[in-house]
Amino acid sequence: MAASETTKLTKVSEQLCFGGKQIRFKHPSSVLHCEMQFSVFLPPQADNARVPALYWLSGLTCTDENFSSKAGAQRIAAELGIALIIPDTSPRGDGVPDDDNGAYDFGLGAGFYVNATREPFARHYQMYDYIVSELPAQVEAELPLSDKRSISGHSMGGHGALVIGLRNSQRYRSISAFSPIGNPVNCPWGIKAFTGYLGEDKSQWQQYDASVLLAEAQKPLPILVDQGSADSFYPEQLRTDSLIAAAKQSGAPAQIRLQQGYDHSYYFIASFIEQHLKFHAGYLLG
Amino acid sequence: MAASETTKLTKVSEQLCFGGKQIRFKHPSSVLHCEMQFSVFLPPQADNARVPALYWLSGLTCTDENFSSKAGAQRIAAELGIALIIPDTSPRGDGVPDDDNGAYDFGLGAGFYVNATREPFARHYQMYDYIVSELPAQVEAELPLSDKRSISGHSMGGHGALVIGLRNSQRYRSISAFSPIGNPVNCPWGIKAFTGYLGEDKSQWQQYDASVLLAEAQKPLPILVDQGSADSFYPEQLRTDSLIAAAKQSGAPAQIRLQQGYDHSYYFIASFIEQHLKFHAGYLLG
Repeated sequence: MAASETTKLTKVSEQLCFGGKQIRFKHPSSVLHCEMQFSVFLPPQADNARVPALYWLSGLTCTDENFSSKAGAQRIAAELGIALIIPDTSPRGDGVPDDDNGAYDFGLGAGFYVNATREPFARHYQMYDYIVSELPAQVEAELPLSDKRSISGHSMGGHGALVIGLRNSQRYRSISAFSPIGNPVNCPWGIKAFTGYLGEDKSQWQQYDASVLLAEAQKPLPILVDQGSADSFYPEQLRTDSLIAAAKQSGAPAQIRLQQGYDHSYYFIASFIEQHLKFHAGYLLG
Repeated sequence: MAASETTKLTKVSEQLCFGGKQIRFKHPSSVLHCEMQFSVFLPPQADNARVPALYWLSGLTCTDENFSSKAGAQRIAAELGIALIIPDTSPRGDGVPDDDNGAYDFGLGAGFYVNATREPFARHYQMYDYIVSELPAQVEAELPLSDKRSISGHSMGGHGALVIGLRNSQRYRSISAFSPIGNPVNCPWGIKAFTGYLGEDKSQWQQYDASVLLAEAQKPLPILVDQGSADSFYPEQLRTDSLIAAAKQSGAPAQIRLQQGYDHSYYFIASFIEQHLKFHAGYLLG
């Protein structure tokens, strides 16, 4: 196919960072029916070769900018030769429905990485398909990326990373998460979001619950999870206990660590992102 | 003196970061006649000993939060055992006058680290004295800090770091700056600010101009400056050329480096903050 038929990414900005390129793109998403922005960090190694990519899924209220500016991940990604792909957390734009009351935990900024089936959300809120299929196809067609992928995220994005990685073990090499919503079918955030996007039939919720998926996993990918003990959302919203029990049940190769004294913020993520990137590098490189 | 007479710092928040403490304080400033907030990073070493401190002065529009969340400095500060003291960029609060038109480059968020003499700014805009005297006295009285200090900053804060370090060589060990406003008496930002805070008499401006001070310096402190070549404010506002000429004139021990392709953002700062911290460590430690 000619480049003119496939080129859909428009560069919004590009900044040098640790010798690599921090780039913001916009593109029309046919899955989400809106224009989306996302950020990419291309390490210096991408000047001469296709590099593997870590997808980072952000949490409630975030855009692609939070992780880009606060996690300090570019330093290690530049050293290791791993690209970072940092999508937005929901569809955006004038035609995209939001929560009726503008809540922070539903609607814009809170797509929960599911394919919504309930109206009026079903047309736009298809974040699962966007992350699993459309975005990787687009960036791998237009950027110097190999087809080696790992996935990570924080809070709602940690939930997304676990669910997407567990359901698509052939597409990813490894999974990690910070403070993930580990059992959304049993916590207030998850119940609200799944009811709104998927409806009352709880059997439809199971496919998006990391603890359910992990308990039943046959050959799950390597998993690393970090949870701060001083996180104000732990344990009620995050249900790390369910995730630990699920890993035991399936015997999955999951390290789930409680980090004493850390909270839910990017100061926690910044403190451990190097360990997460090196964990993924073990599966993405060589 | 009893603690009750000297304790003025109130903790607003505290978060664990790289094993150290990222803390936000508020305190009444008798120099600025308002309540001020600032942030501190205490490395793990401060649990058992008094540690030296790097003061970081931020640029136009910033508060203490920009450097705290975006520079990634805590990682290296924790490794080296250096505290970070991160003040706000101007007086704040209801009684503090702002620019009549709310400009970003004068008034709130734009104190320029001078002692204003012109009304209505003179009562509150005394950032030079706040940074040189009041803030260090307060933090050294209440936090586990030694009296070893270095100073750094970005843009307007790079100007502040150079001016304060050059005029107070007995109080600091080393100076560094990212993208400093290197010759404010000759650039639009500086002319506007100095006219507004100091009045039309340009002889009063010289004491706040890094190029003037550096050219005349007898025994200046060690200086490291990084300037990005893709910075949209370079060269017109930043006048790095003047700073280089001044260093040559006085024979000062100043490294002034042009970093190819980097811009004015925190992605630039993050890329080189490790080198700056290690530069200061050479003078603060041992």
